[in-house]
Amino acid sequence: QTPPPAEPAPTPPAPGSVSVRATSEGISLRSADDALLLKLRGYVQLDGRFFESRADRPGATTLLIRRARPLLEGTLFSLFDFRLLVDFAANVPPLWDAYLEFRPRKEVRVRVGRFRPPVGLERNQSGIHTLFIERALPTDLVPNRDVGVMVHGELKDGVVSYALGAFNGTADGASADTNLDDSFDLAARVFAHPFRALGLSSLSGLGLGIAASRGSQFGSASTTGEAPLRSMGQQTFFIFRTGNGLGETVVAHGPHVRWSPQGYLYLGPLGAMAEYVSSTQEVNLGEQHARLRFESWQASASYVLFGGKAAYDGVKPTEPFGASAEGWGAVELGARMSELRVDPDAFPVYADPTRSARKAHGWGAVANWYLNNNVRVATSYDHTEYEGGAVEGARLPESVVMSRFQVSW
Amino acid sequence: QTPPPAEPAPTPPAPGSVSVRATSEGISLRSADDALLLKLRGYVQLDGRFFESRADRPGATTLLIRRARPLLEGTLFSLFDFRLLVDFAANVPPLWDAYLEFRPRKEVRVRVGRFRPPVGLERNQSGIHTLFIERALPTDLVPNRDVGVMVHGELKDGVVSYALGAFNGTADGASADTNLDDSFDLAARVFAHPFRALGLSSLSGLGLGIAASRGSQFGSASTTGEAPLRSMGQQTFFIFRTGNGLGETVVAHGPHVRWSPQGYLYLGPLGAMAEYVSSTQEVNLGEQHARLRFESWQASASYVLFGGKAAYDGVKPTEPFGASAEGWGAVELGARMSELRVDPDAFPVYADPTRSARKAHGWGAVANWYLNNNVRVATSYDHTEYEGGAVEGARLPESVVMSRFQVSW
Amino acid sequence: QTPPPAEPAPTPPAPGSVSVRATSEGISLRSADDALLLKLRGYVQLDGRFFESRADRPGATTLLIRRARPLLEGTLFSLFDFRLLVDFAANVPPLWDAYLEFRPRKEVRVRVGRFRPPVGLERNQSGIHTLFIERALPTDLVPNRDVGVMVHGELKDGVVSYALGAFNGTADGASADTNLDDSFDLAARVFAHPFRALGLSSLSGLGLGIAASRGSQFGSASTTGEAPLRSMGQQTFFIFRTGNGLGETVVAHGPHVRWSPQGYLYLGPLGAMAEYVSSTQEVNLGEQHARLRFESWQASASYVLFGGKAAYDGVKPTEPFGASAEGWGAVELGARMSELRVDPDAFPVYADPTRSARKAHGWGAVANWYLNNNVRVATSYDHTEYEGGAVEGARLPESVVMSRFQVSW
Repeated sequence: QTPPPAEPAPTPPAPGSVSVRATSEGISLRSADDALLLKLRGYVQLDGRFFESRADRPGATTLLIRRARPLLEGTLFSLFDFRLLVDFAANVPPLWDAYLEFRPRKEVRVRVGRFRPPVGLERNQSGIHTLFIERALPTDLVPNRDVGVMVHGELKDGVVSYALGAFNGTADGASADTNLDDSFDLAARVFAHPFRALGLSSLSGLGLGIAASRGSQFGSASTTGEAPLRSMGQQTFFIFRTGNGLGETVVAHGPHVRWSPQGYLYLGPLGAMAEYVSSTQEVNLGEQHARLRFESWQASASYVLFGGKAAYDGVKPTEPFGASAEGWGAVELGARMSELRVDPDAFPVYADPTRSARKAHGWGAVANWYLNNNVRVATSYDHTEYEGGAVEGARLPESVVMSRFQVSW
Repeated sequence: QTPPPAEPAPTPPAPGSVSVRATSEGISLRSADDALLLKLRGYVQLDGRFFESRADRPGATTLLIRRARPLLEGTLFSLFDFRLLVDFAANVPPLWDAYLEFRPRKEVRVRVGRFRPPVGLERNQSGIHTLFIERALPTDLVPNRDVGVMVHGELKDGVVSYALGAFNGTADGASADTNLDDSFDLAARVFAHPFRALGLSSLSGLGLGIAASRGSQFGSASTTGEAPLRSMGQQTFFIFRTGNGLGETVVAHGPHVRWSPQGYLYLGPLGAMAEYVSSTQEVNLGEQHARLRFESWQASASYVLFGGKAAYDGVKPTEPFGASAEGWGAVELGARMSELRVDPDAFPVYADPTRSARKAHGWGAVANWYLNNNVRVATSYDHTEYEGGAVEGARLPESVVMSRFQVSW
Repeated sequence: QTPPPAEPAPTPPAPGSVSVRATSEGISLRSADDALLLKLRGYVQLDGRFFESRADRPGATTLLIRRARPLLEGTLFSLFDFRLLVDFAANVPPLWDAYLEFRPRKEVRVRVGRFRPPVGLERNQSGIHTLFIERALPTDLVPNRDVGVMVHGELKDGVVSYALGAFNGTADGASADTNLDDSFDLAARVFAHPFRALGLSSLSGLGLGIAASRGSQFGSASTTGEAPLRSMGQQTFFIFRTGNGLGETVVAHGPHVRWSPQGYLYLGPLGAMAEYVSSTQEVNLGEQHARLRFESWQASASYVLFGGKAAYDGVKPTEPFGASAEGWGAVELGARMSELRVDPDAFPVYADPTRSARKAHGWGAVANWYLNNNVRVATSYDHTEYEGGAVEGARLPESVVMSRFQVSW
């Protein structure tokens, strides 16, 4: 009798051979020995900004490519994660994230490179996952990107997470590539999901935390160590005085301390987020010196009408809309309030009260349609009122409708 | 008797699995379910520019990387096309194209993002397919890239194609990332291949069209809404007056209207292209206001000596030159004339007649060797004469030999 | 009797099909017909610079992303090599290398595009392979990147290598994208490994060479054709006078000649490198003209304590450190001296003796830990002293500790 024919033995993968896959999370390459996982991802946002027309309108109605960001991320030797995120949009620097993270276990991860310091809650959401099209006013007071070293991790399955890092130090709302001075900033955050410890799964989406940063900054006439403050419509409403040389230009000069209590709640379709930021910095104008405190807060709420659940890292539609799919994706509505107060002592010495506002407060509403994990269409309305900032009383209120067409992969 | 051994059943592709291929059109990744097609392409152009030596020569003889452009394009769900084109060459912005196109059928396509408005005929050719190394003078008067929304399509198998879009609006010859004002520009084009309707295949390569754009632009002292005009040798020969503040700087202020009849003929080895552009814009200099009309035209003809056929989207050599191939590629010769006239009313108030020319007219010749679909070697000569533009009469004529070594994949 | 079942015939690869592999040299794609080999590589360097604190310290202690460079390279038709190297780090231009190289045989290779002219020995090492974190002072006097055409090759299995090219011409220590004038620079180098010819394999790592460049540069008030000189800590210690217009600004004006004897020795764990550069250039300041000579030299030595051999193109650890590996990589120690002298005739007319030093000389030490072929950790110390460059005598010495965390793939 004839034995059954032997199946061709599976050939072992050649050293270095790679499997390539494409999912809604991008193109991935995985080596046969799992030593390398590489993901090619990215996102593009096409925005429209439509300001209420006035004779003295604050911004121009425009279409723009808000972000055009290819992203390379992956894992080496199952031990190191890396990420390289660049942006090709106009008038922004090319490099955003460039870091390597050593993660022997999830309780202890060491990240080195350029990334977001762990201060602002909304700032630490990805630009593709924020509820609104543009972040709220507290983001004006926290660091954007900085170069540094950070230890972070999750304890007890995410009941508590922590982060502690040393960075060059940035002006409020700004990014830094190099240090202006010899001092490094420390930034830290503790964030807890207390009900996860109690096993109350219904409230497992409640997170509370506190973040802080402390350092010193010393600016010069060419790099002042200060940055302008912007409204939701991305218009500058506060700027320190600048002029010829150090005698006419306000520069950072001394300690810079931020602290920020923050929290969110995600409960099925319902989402809520709130944060407060206080930033105290010392500045010089010629011989004069002051310690100025900026404060800001925001509170937002959202509701997913259908098709998904609210989450800090974005709504994932359960029934995607698409050529061969039958679903309609997910639709989310949201609202927020937000306020920022400049230290009154900033005026008139350090800032011109006829050009810089001393307070901005606003509210907004947004509707998001997540067609699937890759496409999001959004429209928002933001209304901001000011105190001060004009020759006669208050800067004109800003009313802006924004729209976004976002593709991420 | 023994049944023939069963062949191993073909294993169904794993979800998300991808096939990778390399052709002369670049690297492509296609997912097994056809939901994704991704192409990695790009092109690099190494140019030489050799100006006739004179004491007062207009430009410097130089070698330069003219374009270094990786290109990512593809199709999602067989329904959406996308394209991301960036340029790493010196002194140019990084982002060129970033758009998504929804194409339910070829008659109706909706494109959103940053791309070329449908105005100039030669401007809408890819930079790797233009007959000459640098485009002719009418390209100085049409938009380069802009952010907007466009509906376009082909009717009756390409007998008629149309495009209609809304854009931020650009200065003549320039690109825009944001809007300078609250108004959007409309741009439209209708282009017909009339003999395709009659079934006259010999004349199916005759195309005639008309394009127009209409909008308003309002500049400021920092962003004037005006751009310089450049010769074929990429030297500025016309620039509006600029100075300190609005009193000394010409800014766009009012309607901006372009129209352009255009056409081409591709008949076997023979090619011809002609376009005319009129651009009328209103400008301010302090209290003074004017409506200025710029006009330009070009006409070119080419002949493919051997190895291919003339075409709007480039000569494709039928017998490629290469290591294992026996052919010599394709060789094409071409000639053109081109002229640009500035409104005489621009002088002397809005432009300095001793620095800006009121007319440029030139001719040129080119030889292209397409080794294969990936490599092109070209050399061209352009001679341009001016009226005005110098303290004593006319700006010196420009005679420039250019060479290009181009690799695209 | 039944014949043994036929094995399924191997299916021939589809045209254009590609095999993807990942090694420590990056991701590679190779087409089935070998017409294309494409490698996706890159490197990221995270640096720290720590200056000795003084009241009047020359630089700020900082962390920075020194280089973030994706690299695309490969081979077409087994005949052409290409390379595209871009950098996303802050304050540097995006494009570094973009070239195509035709290599019919290793004796004759023709390279066109943007790349390093063959002058400086350490400059021609990759930034991931230099012994120290920052290159020594002679690199201030040689071209960085330039656009040009170069013929180069190796004769007799590397006994002699040569390079001869024509380039736009750069200022000392700088890169060029276009030419400032009508003249091209010639650059040439001959480099020999004399003991390879004699079969003395023990001394086969001794290389001696001489390089030179010759051209003319003519600057203008906006692009002077001159660049500042930087210390190892990347601080400017010499700069020509600049001011309003040509009357107050030093510009290159005339011949620019460099020559550089150079050599290295790699003998097992031992490495040594030395080079001398003389750069003579003619400059104008208003009506005044001078011919100035800058000189610089460096000498370095290194020793690989364990795990590898010294080499010009970097230490390759034989026993990599890693998750599944048992080795400790390789550790290398090094030291160097370096000096740069400005022509005394530069002072006081062309350079301000209270701001620009007339001599810099320094020494340094470095320790490198090569964990594997992909990861390097380094720390270095450099001490530089100056003559001149301050109102009262000498510019303050620079003492800088640098650290680097480098990932390349």
